[in-house]
Amino acid sequence: MGADIAAIVQKNARFTAKGQVASYIPELAKQDPSLLGLCLMHTDGRTQCFGDFDKKFTMQSVVKVAVFLSALLDNSLPSLFRKINISPTADGFNSIVSLETKSDKKPLNPFINSGAIVSLSMVAGGTPQDKFERVLGLLQRITGNPTLEVNEAVYRSERATGDRNRALAYYMKSTGILECPVEPLLDAYFRLCSVEADCRDIASLACFLARNGVTAAGETLAGRDTCRLVKAVMSTCGMYDGSGDFAALVGIPAKSGVGGGILGVVPGRCGVGVLGPALDEHGNSLAGVMLLHDLSEAFDWSIY
Amino acid sequence: MGADIAAIVQKNARFTAKGQVASYIPELAKQDPSLLGLCLMHTDGRTQCFGDFDKKFTMQSVVKVAVFLSALLDNSLPSLFRKINISPTADGFNSIVSLETKSDKKPLNPFINSGAIVSLSMVAGGTPQDKFERVLGLLQRITGNPTLEVNEAVYRSERATGDRNRALAYYMKSTGILECPVEPLLDAYFRLCSVEADCRDIASLACFLARNGVTAAGETLAGRDTCRLVKAVMSTCGMYDGSGDFAALVGIPAKSGVGGGILGVVPGRCGVGVLGPALDEHGNSLAGVMLLHDLSEAFDWSIY
Amino acid sequence: MGADIAAIVQKNARFTAKGQVASYIPELAKQDPSLLGLCLMHTDGRTQCFGDFDKKFTMQSVVKVAVFLSALLDNSLPSLFRKINISPTADGFNSIVSLETKSDKKPLNPFINSGAIVSLSMVAGGTPQDKFERVLGLLQRITGNPTLEVNEAVYRSERATGDRNRALAYYMKSTGILECPVEPLLDAYFRLCSVEADCRDIASLACFLARNGVTAAGETLAGRDTCRLVKAVMSTCGMYDGSGDFAALVGIPAKSGVGGGILGVVPGRCGVGVLGPALDEHGNSLAGVMLLHDLSEAFDWSIY
Amino acid sequence: MGADIAAIVQKNARFTAKGQVASYIPELAKQDPSLLGLCLMHTDGRTQCFGDFDKKFTMQSVVKVAVFLSALLDNSLPSLFRKINISPTADGFNSIVSLETKSDKKPLNPFINSGAIVSLSMVAGGTPQDKFERVLGLLQRITGNPTLEVNEAVYRSERATGDRNRALAYYMKSTGILECPVEPLLDAYFRLCSVEADCRDIASLACFLARNGVTAAGETLAGRDTCRLVKAVMSTCGMYDGSGDFAALVGIPAKSGVGGGILGVVPGRCGVGVLGPALDEHGNSLAGVMLLHDLSEAFDWSIY
Repeated sequence: MGADIAAIVQKNARFTAKGQVASYIPELAKQDPSLLGLCLMHTDGRTQCFGDFDKKFTMQSVVKVAVFLSALLDNSLPSLFRKINISPTADGFNSIVSLETKSDKKPLNPFINSGAIVSLSMVAGGTPQDKFERVLGLLQRITGNPTLEVNEAVYRSERATGDRNRALAYYMKSTGILECPVEPLLDAYFRLCSVEADCRDIASLACFLARNGVTAAGETLAGRDTCRLVKAVMSTCGMYDGSGDFAALVGIPAKSGVGGGILGVVPGRCGVGVLGPALDEHGNSLAGVMLLHDLSEAFDWSIY
Repeated sequence: MGADIAAIVQKNARFTAKGQVASYIPELAKQDPSLLGLCLMHTDGRTQCFGDFDKKFTMQSVVKVAVFLSALLDNSLPSLFRKINISPTADGFNSIVSLETKSDKKPLNPFINSGAIVSLSMVAGGTPQDKFERVLGLLQRITGNPTLEVNEAVYRSERATGDRNRALAYYMKSTGILECPVEPLLDAYFRLCSVEADCRDIASLACFLARNGVTAAGETLAGRDTCRLVKAVMSTCGMYDGSGDFAALVGIPAKSGVGGGILGVVPGRCGVGVLGPALDEHGNSLAGVMLLHDLSEAFDWSIY
Repeated sequence: MGADIAAIVQKNARFTAKGQVASYIPELAKQDPSLLGLCLMHTDGRTQCFGDFDKKFTMQSVVKVAVFLSALLDNSLPSLFRKINISPTADGFNSIVSLETKSDKKPLNPFINSGAIVSLSMVAGGTPQDKFERVLGLLQRITGNPTLEVNEAVYRSERATGDRNRALAYYMKSTGILECPVEPLLDAYFRLCSVEADCRDIASLACFLARNGVTAAGETLAGRDTCRLVKAVMSTCGMYDGSGDFAALVGIPAKSGVGGGILGVVPGRCGVGVLGPALDEHGNSLAGVMLLHDLSEAFDWSIY
Repeated sequence: MGADIAAIVQKNARFTAKGQVASYIPELAKQDPSLLGLCLMHTDGRTQCFGDFDKKFTMQSVVKVAVFLSALLDNSLPSLFRKINISPTADGFNSIVSLETKSDKKPLNPFINSGAIVSLSMVAGGTPQDKFERVLGLLQRITGNPTLEVNEAVYRSERATGDRNRALAYYMKSTGILECPVEPLLDAYFRLCSVEADCRDIASLACFLARNGVTAAGETLAGRDTCRLVKAVMSTCGMYDGSGDFAALVGIPAKSGVGGGILGVVPGRCGVGVLGPALDEHGNSLAGVMLLHDLSEAFDWSIY
């Protein structure tokens, strides 16, 4: 079976040439578009790695999974949902329109930028620095990797070019959705987006969700219902405005990032970490989506 | 277990008083808001019925499942997706905004009104009457109920008050998305929305999807991938702008209608038909959603 | 002075090659793009004609001035403004978005298509045919030209391709803004858009507004305040989404049509009729706007 | 005639009770809603003052006239219009939607907040402080009042509650429309909005525009075409989303501010300064608009 998977990875490597690395953050533009890596971490403990699985990349929007999970752990559902919805949308990930046009002024869901920023504001901690440490600490415990850290160059690049996120945050500040100071919160947000991981780290986090809250070390860090809620939101909102296509094509809860990462969960079976920095028009790893499609076909992953 | 389910239905009956029957179609306003019915049709052949399971109601948007299924069976995916997307949306089911603002002019998905009208236009048949018969015939074969028929009073009421759908259809006609004459097509659409069924019929259609295309009589009428695609779109788009909440709360592919019906699929396990005409603010059966939530909890239905 | 004007017309004729005739109505696509005509009708009775002043063209949106004037004459302001606003907009002339997003569901102003259709519905007359005759009759009296008539070929072309207007009308029907049957009303609307005139007819109507409601024959057909209201709305909304630029560049109340006509009013001084079927990106006669700019400069027309 | 005007002011004083002072900036909420003041400065040199004409108030959006004028004086039209449009809009003064939905990303016009911020960025000056001084200096020269200064308490209140403006500015920064650092520019903007004036100062600025660029002292500070452009944009965009109604009702170029001021221009005849802090639903002085309506009627001010 490992041989089959290696062949599937190999076959999809050609799609790396069809996409483009993110360019709006200068540091991301330096990524190697030809990379394709895969890690499968099975709930029975087996781990399989392929291609560029050990190349590091910044989590970017994949970290929204950990941010939302932290917000769920640190708040009651009613208090969290006073600030954020969990509605899928065909708008882009950094769209500001709905913050003005929707009567409740709440971000549509925690996996678009506005929603992730609000989620982070709801994470436990007196200061944004505390919130940052809360999420990073949770990530380290879940993955069992205490070396997860911020890529300082990418962080500085994000911060320097983060004006669209500032617009989102100040807008939400003006409507009272965001209650803490904007710049320190965005600083924590940019640092979390810049946390560097490899496919194994992503697969660890995914496997934790596949096991409904239990780490590889056997530690229970979240409840079943919490993990299911995260996976439900991933299924409807995780792949930007390509979420509907991905559900139809691949059929598993997933979250992508513009660093080229995709976190996929096959509930009860395995966690998946993919790296492929060349992106499609939705901002998802182009070869990564194709690879997941073939794996879903081959191993009957679809949850539908 | 049947006793447990009866108790769950009984417990949720009180929520029928919290919703309101659809009022924009005069005939629907006459429905009894206190009804609550349930049918479970298991893939092993068992059927369980509760409450007002044998009351007839018009399928309304639940029929969009059969329309989309027909369109999938009658077209290649590329030709179908030239006319329609499968993107979730936070817009209302009858919103016209995205038809103007999205550059491709395509309906966002087949489960909002604009998308269902386009889907119907893609169903095989030289005339709208042929398309109507194609979908109704498929419904009759899938459910094994050749007596499924249009409620003429509701149909006339729909047609008389269908100006918003006319606006959607003429808009799509003006952009070339819709290629056939508007009024006859809408006539077929209104008649399909007015097809009368009970909870067993809905559960039959749902069980067919749970079995990935095989009827109770053992007949294969659709392929596995086709059924999965339908269920994926149901999961992300099936409950109007409440789809995200429903995924988080209940966690199964489902499609609701303003007649009070909900079709739910527990893949590989069972099909669910619910009737509860009193609706919530999204247009979904209020007590029906609460009932499905409790059943999902009790029997671990969530696919996530 | 006549010689000067002739030179200005001549100078601007070259701009006819920069625009394009309207193509979305097949009959309009047959127009000669190289035409440029001008008629000035002064309030002191003098008339000056230049270029292709005697070529006939269909009034298209220029007729909205007569429709709105009729609606003003036949209704109290409060009852008219229950159905329509007079707000400028940067949306396109056939946009449907604001009908859904604005809470009052009213058309933004009488010079976009939705607003003109509603205005026509408010004109006196038991049937759409009566309303058509009311507006055409008023036009004939104002211009003193009883031969003004519908171009049947253009009318049929409009009706055959009027699906976008049908979408607007059915949408407004569904929200209760439009109270009469859609198709007969649109039929009257399409016929009014297809009324054929030449630059003298347009200048006559404009001169009537410049004289605040008095015809060349000395007949008073509208009050000063009514005419000023029409001119105010022309100034803010008359040139589609180019209205702001036109106010800055030319500075007179005006209304254009996709048939290439422009009606301009120099209050107290003269009425202007222009023909130039080659349009700019806003849908206004390209050479016509340039010509009016030069005339405004030369004769100090700006009202600001 | 002075007696007549006093009576008209007196008659409209009762409308001050129908509006509400701006509340979103705490310092503005302290204003006395019952004030009503008027100053007419005629182009022949006469000045007439009534009611609370000598009460000071902050200019707020009235200052946008001076900002736009400065930008026009300091840039060629093509370079200015690369950054900003002059399109009327039915959107609110602080709307962000069009910055995302319009393909050119430019603010719709210089009299909504986004457009005023961009205009200020185009004013001559190496630093925002320089730009501030350029506009304030121009205001002082035009009005002949060197004591015009910032109300520090209002300025601090604006800055403290200016998150919506920060959202607009950062959005435009992210799209490249705004090229200078956001916070210092907004600081200059908030200070300009907080410049304190009375009705005479506003009337002076208005009279300067009525005289097409000549001050009361006979100094020419702007050209005729520049002043006309400012007045054209005031006519189509000056009264927020009430601009269309104001054109129809009053018929003169005007610009209002949420401090209760209105600047009105009767071209060639007089400049008008009004104070009335109780606002209508558009954000315009309620009694001020009614007063201007009556004055326009009485003295035949309408430009249409």
